[in-house]
Amino acid sequence: MTTESNSLICRDVAVGCGTVIWNFVNLYGCQIGDDCMIGAFIEIQKEVSIGHRTRIQSHTFICEKVRIGNDCFIAHGVMFINDTFSGGGPAGDPALWAETEVGDGVSIGSNATILPVKIGAGSVIGAGAVVTRDVPPNVIVVGNPAHITRRLTED
Amino acid sequence: MTTESNSLICRDVAVGCGTVIWNFVNLYGCQIGDDCMIGAFIEIQKEVSIGHRTRIQSHTFICEKVRIGNDCFIAHGVMFINDTFSGGGPAGDPALWAETEVGDGVSIGSNATILPVKIGAGSVIGAGAVVTRDVPPNVIVVGNPAHITRRLTED
Amino acid sequence: MTTESNSLICRDVAVGCGTVIWNFVNLYGCQIGDDCMIGAFIEIQKEVSIGHRTRIQSHTFICEKVRIGNDCFIAHGVMFINDTFSGGGPAGDPALWAETEVGDGVSIGSNATILPVKIGAGSVIGAGAVVTRDVPPNVIVVGNPAHITRRLTED
Repeated sequence: MTTESNSLICRDVAVGCGTVIWNFVNLYGCQIGDDCMIGAFIEIQKEVSIGHRTRIQSHTFICEKVRIGNDCFIAHGVMFINDTFSGGGPAGDPALWAETEVGDGVSIGSNATILPVKIGAGSVIGAGAVVTRDVPPNVIVVGNPAHITRRLTED
Repeated sequence: MTTESNSLICRDVAVGCGTVIWNFVNLYGCQIGDDCMIGAFIEIQKEVSIGHRTRIQSHTFICEKVRIGNDCFIAHGVMFINDTFSGGGPAGDPALWAETEVGDGVSIGSNATILPVKIGAGSVIGAGAVVTRDVPPNVIVVGNPAHITRRLTED
Repeated sequence: MTTESNSLICRDVAVGCGTVIWNFVNLYGCQIGDDCMIGAFIEIQKEVSIGHRTRIQSHTFICEKVRIGNDCFIAHGVMFINDTFSGGGPAGDPALWAETEVGDGVSIGSNATILPVKIGAGSVIGAGAVVTRDVPPNVIVVGNPAHITRRLTED
């Protein structure tokens, strides 16, 4: 692990070889693979798991109950969510929080908001999208709420 | 007040008993009640008032002229606004900025944007919503611009 | 240059007279004019150029290939983008990234997302807007995707 900073808080974090972590970062209880990049002003909560070669850009927040695959690109200001306020407010009990799974090779655009969903491998989430439902593999979704605008060919 | 950090800037801040403030925080001239939680990467400006047992999550910005009630949950990356650029750009004179009032028990989802409005007690603002008009009590609003999608029963 | 902080990272940054930079800032390889204001929790990447008397508010990210004019107001949580994932994911090669040019006197609202576009002088980008196309001078745009809602008179 290489860090560029004395303004870094990492507690109980397992970080793979070759991963770079920038300044002003608040990480705790999470697991990050090899050759990743974690930008500035990022918080990653406990029990998050991030695969190999995945890059997380500045100002992003990743909450408990999120798993992110290999070779993903999570852009700037992306907010993950585990509590949908389904009862009219915070669930209180973490047992009621829901999971998010981001497949391999997914790209998520800046300022996107990700409710608890599954995002299939190779899909692209547009900048500013609010993702409220599962996303199949190899599609592009945009908008609030997000909807599919294009299918990508698998190659 | 408990802080977990040496990366904390608090000037002229009145903080109640039992309130926890995390790392990388920029607070000045504001008033925060008892048993609150203030997350990382948060800025709260002067003359903001926050009630008791209210939790403010990471990456949120709260500007002058905002009052937040008791038992609220303000999620991640929420931006409050006091200047609507109504004259075609920044007002310049703070006397032209408008107020926001958030009632008790309100929940605001991640990446929401809150123009100067009143939000009634018990309402829920969906993740990614852009709130441009007043919100009555006990409703759920979502979207850009935000609109009511459900009424909550008061119990 | 005045800074209020020991939590400031500036590498290879050219900053004009009278410019104020706040706390928790990550700036590298960029050029900032005279009498600007750079808020907290801001990252500005290399080769960005910012004119005179422009104010950049907290939580904003400005990427490579962005030029911002004089007398602009960039609000909180604004994310600029240079890679549109047009090939179905990150471009990889920076030669494929696209430029953004923000004219003089532009105001950009909080939580706006700016794809690579030209924004004409004097225009206003609404809070929470996702700007996917060029914006002419002296208009107001809002929404996701952003569309023109009003023309401003030049005076």
